[in-house]
Amino acid sequence: MGMKGNQAQPGFFPKRTHHCHELRRCHIGQRVTLIGWVHSRRDHGGVVFVDLRDREGITQVVFHPDRCPEATQEAHRVREESVLQVWGEVAARPPGTENRRLATGEIEVNADGLRVVSPCAVLPFPLHGGNLPGEELRLSYRFLDLRRRPMLENLRIRHRVLRAIRDYLDGQGFIEVETPILSKSTPEGARDFLVPSRLHRGCFYALPQAPQQYKQLLMVAGLERYYQIARCFRDEDLRADRQPEFTQIDLEASFVDQEELFGWVEGFLEEAFGRVCGVELSLPFPRLSYWEAIDRYGTEKPDLRWPLALSDVSEIFSETGCKIFRAALEQGGVIKAINAKGLAELSLAQLEGLIEEAKSLGAGGLAYVKVEGKEWKSPIARHLTEKEKEALSQRLEVEPGDLLLFSAESWEIACKVLGKIRERVMSWLSKSHIPKEPFAFVWITDFPLFQFDKEANRWEATHHPFTRPHPEDWKLFEEGQYEKVRALAYDLVLNGVEIGSGSLRVHEPELQARIFQILGLDPMIQEKRFGHLLRALSYGAPPHGGIALGVDRLVMMMAGATTIRDVIAFPKNSAGVDLLTGSPTEVELEQLRELGIRTVPYREP
Amino acid sequence: MGMKGNQAQPGFFPKRTHHCHELRRCHIGQRVTLIGWVHSRRDHGGVVFVDLRDREGITQVVFHPDRCPEATQEAHRVREESVLQVWGEVAARPPGTENRRLATGEIEVNADGLRVVSPCAVLPFPLHGGNLPGEELRLSYRFLDLRRRPMLENLRIRHRVLRAIRDYLDGQGFIEVETPILSKSTPEGARDFLVPSRLHRGCFYALPQAPQQYKQLLMVAGLERYYQIARCFRDEDLRADRQPEFTQIDLEASFVDQEELFGWVEGFLEEAFGRVCGVELSLPFPRLSYWEAIDRYGTEKPDLRWPLALSDVSEIFSETGCKIFRAALEQGGVIKAINAKGLAELSLAQLEGLIEEAKSLGAGGLAYVKVEGKEWKSPIARHLTEKEKEALSQRLEVEPGDLLLFSAESWEIACKVLGKIRERVMSWLSKSHIPKEPFAFVWITDFPLFQFDKEANRWEATHHPFTRPHPEDWKLFEEGQYEKVRALAYDLVLNGVEIGSGSLRVHEPELQARIFQILGLDPMIQEKRFGHLLRALSYGAPPHGGIALGVDRLVMMMAGATTIRDVIAFPKNSAGVDLLTGSPTEVELEQLRELGIRTVPYREP
Repeated sequence: MGMKGNQAQPGFFPKRTHHCHELRRCHIGQRVTLIGWVHSRRDHGGVVFVDLRDREGITQVVFHPDRCPEATQEAHRVREESVLQVWGEVAARPPGTENRRLATGEIEVNADGLRVVSPCAVLPFPLHGGNLPGEELRLSYRFLDLRRRPMLENLRIRHRVLRAIRDYLDGQGFIEVETPILSKSTPEGARDFLVPSRLHRGCFYALPQAPQQYKQLLMVAGLERYYQIARCFRDEDLRADRQPEFTQIDLEASFVDQEELFGWVEGFLEEAFGRVCGVELSLPFPRLSYWEAIDRYGTEKPDLRWPLALSDVSEIFSETGCKIFRAALEQGGVIKAINAKGLAELSLAQLEGLIEEAKSLGAGGLAYVKVEGKEWKSPIARHLTEKEKEALSQRLEVEPGDLLLFSAESWEIACKVLGKIRERVMSWLSKSHIPKEPFAFVWITDFPLFQFDKEANRWEATHHPFTRPHPEDWKLFEEGQYEKVRALAYDLVLNGVEIGSGSLRVHEPELQARIFQILGLDPMIQEKRFGHLLRALSYGAPPHGGIALGVDRLVMMMAGATTIRDVIAFPKNSAGVDLLTGSPTEVELEQLRELGIRTVPYREP
Repeated sequence: MGMKGNQAQPGFFPKRTHHCHELRRCHIGQRVTLIGWVHSRRDHGGVVFVDLRDREGITQVVFHPDRCPEATQEAHRVREESVLQVWGEVAARPPGTENRRLATGEIEVNADGLRVVSPCAVLPFPLHGGNLPGEELRLSYRFLDLRRRPMLENLRIRHRVLRAIRDYLDGQGFIEVETPILSKSTPEGARDFLVPSRLHRGCFYALPQAPQQYKQLLMVAGLERYYQIARCFRDEDLRADRQPEFTQIDLEASFVDQEELFGWVEGFLEEAFGRVCGVELSLPFPRLSYWEAIDRYGTEKPDLRWPLALSDVSEIFSETGCKIFRAALEQGGVIKAINAKGLAELSLAQLEGLIEEAKSLGAGGLAYVKVEGKEWKSPIARHLTEKEKEALSQRLEVEPGDLLLFSAESWEIACKVLGKIRERVMSWLSKSHIPKEPFAFVWITDFPLFQFDKEANRWEATHHPFTRPHPEDWKLFEEGQYEKVRALAYDLVLNGVEIGSGSLRVHEPELQARIFQILGLDPMIQEKRFGHLLRALSYGAPPHGGIALGVDRLVMMMAGATTIRDVIAFPKNSAGVDLLTGSPTEVELEQLRELGIRTVPYREP
């Protein structure tokens, strides 16, 4: 093993007297022992300065060759990120060398000795101060990447957020219950990850996409209030900010309505944001129906940090001389407008980019007006009457420097186009303006219960098949006007990102079977996939509902991180690979033989 | 949908004014609304009595035909376990009909109306009061089984235990970190569950048997104190009380020794037992080295609720005239004895059962003495001198009615035999005697680092390959006397059940590689399976160690349950099947095609 010099011996358990964030002027003169990593090292005229770092902070340790010649030699040689135990005496820093940015910046420790507890090899990239390398390298050396302060801080924030949420829910009488990971495959929605069973050859468990059915079964069991910080799995083609496994705050309660559920979610978010971010959320969160969200923001995930909204200006143009506008109105369409405050300065190229984007979304084009001083500059300017301009000025609160954008299309397309344009405009604004609110929450309610999938020629559940029809649309449901039926389903959106989704559920077995039927599941398939749920509903199931919030995304936003990978200790890359361990890997043939499976070379379907 | 009569309508969200455990004499005269399940129903001269149950308790509701004729009719028809909303007035029970066993036993609610929120089908088995059906039926209808009070209570206990442990560890600066479930296969120890990767055909993730390597990587990352309530997986042939997935309290810390780790575990258990069971544990827990445990109790999992221990009485018999005893001593063996207090009454058949058991464990036989009054009755009685009897009486604290059992064998076999006999004796005692302590913890320390697997002709790690050799045995390790090297490894045993296991770890890459080598892993396999860990250890890894405790077993014992399945919401049966959902199941061929795998019919290897 070749232990030598001041290196630690195998049976040695280094101890500290203080953590590296603790020492202050009041400790001057005390003898202390610290342990930590060499954050940085500078040699200055024979004296060696080491910034020693542990989980809590940094302390400057000074090795004077006249005070401890051997230790100074050793400190001179030691590599960054090695683990040291150091002992010495706390002293005031010489006047003028204090470091106000450091909690311990008024003192330093004059070393009397050191022990190299664990040496560090040459680092693959500089951890502190230097430019960050590509993420792939960081992920390959995740154990080093996590030593960077912001990363450690992210893990701590995650811990504290979940802690706050648990505290709140426990206080409200919720019981955390662990549901199975080795679960049942119900092929719909996203793809399942499968786990071959060795004891039951040819059979498979599935990893849960959510504990949806289990939590409903817990309601039937009379638990009344359940939650779980639950691991979920989706085998999807990974996009930039997706992970094959993710964590959600999963909640379900009996005998509740939407109001109560919203109150709990607002309650635990208030608790978490207050404790962790020091931000006081203003409650209750605003609400928009799905229809309102589309109509005013062109999306079901509106970012309300920016007040910018779409206006229907059809009425203003009821007698327009502009051919395109008139044609749209005559075909039953609408004219919608958005005022991109202060963006009259956009170049023609940028404007043409917007027009191209509109066309790619199915629009015929995109009309615009640059308001330069008092002048309205636009290809359609000559068609605008003074009366129309005045009405627009009022409605859109037009000021010099604004850019007005118009979409004259069917309602759906006009909303979609201006929704996208709005996002683009916001991304420009966000570079120069600080939003009014850093965290803009909004509830989106009353989603459609079904959507018609034209390709597959069948109805699909907008949320999932356990979602309850809106009682006001009961007649439409009975009449089979499924496209018009709203659901008691809701999303929670934060800064334009969906962070939660839920609904009140079907608790009547006949209604559940009928919805399965509408979705094209015949009774045999219903029994095979959901027999246990239908059965459960027939034994006195309480009315119930719930919601699930994505932890990774929520914590990412609270921590101010730019990717969920920065708030997950060991994430996969965008190809689903753990670059640290190399997983997934090939396995021994013997393992497959025992499982009764064989891998098959790829062939085009 | 056919809603009729008093049945709830689709848009109806029933509300309550009180839970069913709340009403007392002070509420008499108040109008209240309750919701819950029909726990039981009795008709008595036209009056219908319903015990209405919710999560919190039970309230008696009375339907008088003259007060509410329609509702009484309805209540008369309603089936047990249906969900009702009931409103009425709180009244004192008629004198003499109070129920002292019920928190609400002094009052009843005179109903004015009811609504059947959700009717219940005919129950597959009676939930309350009747005899429990077989466990398979209970598991098939788990949503009903969990309505039974003891089961709900178990889930609550589990929640509160984990809550207490989290509170304690948070207070000690531990950070909870979630580690991956889609992990890497490292074929050793138990079998891995595998998850085929769709994006990387022919490759597999593995479900973690424990977050062992991830938590060590977190220590290298400088987290210093980590914990996680972690889901783990083992694809083993299931025994009675095993589950393919289970939960553990997983803990790791840097710069610690055994003392500190033991202190934390004792601390969180003290907290949990105090809060949940109202039991004050006496700390610190006793400790035994592995060698002491075997020597005194014949097992590394001694049940210390019973003071019964093995004694080495070789010395007493140094001049024995008993041939078998002398032969054992001459062959370097020992004579060990145990005093089965008060069991002189055992029948000859029971004694012969013990002797057979001893033989099945490799012993030549088992000697016994029944102490009846002053008389020692035994086939070997005539070989015992008065001096020997006196010495035995003192050493074994012999009293009339005791049964002495002797094993004269090699130390290993004598310990094993009397250890088993001790278990048998305790199981008899436990039927008639209450143990001194309901919860007897003991730390077992200093396990051997390696065990030689004779069949495979190689060394195996007793705990796992990341375990640290004992510093006092460093020389033995260097000399290759592996069988003599102890480890810094420890188990926590409660009432004879291992509930925790841990160790201090290897943090030096050279030492880790050498241990892998001793275990027969050549450098190529080391790199393939553990390259990431070896690499991590070379970048300034702190000395660290940890422990993991089994949650299911711990909670089972705290709840006084007899199987871990009773403290798991949705367990699998002993064949790994979830009888509720029918998982594991066959899956669509299309799913397998996408994953690039095929199932293979079973052939003998």
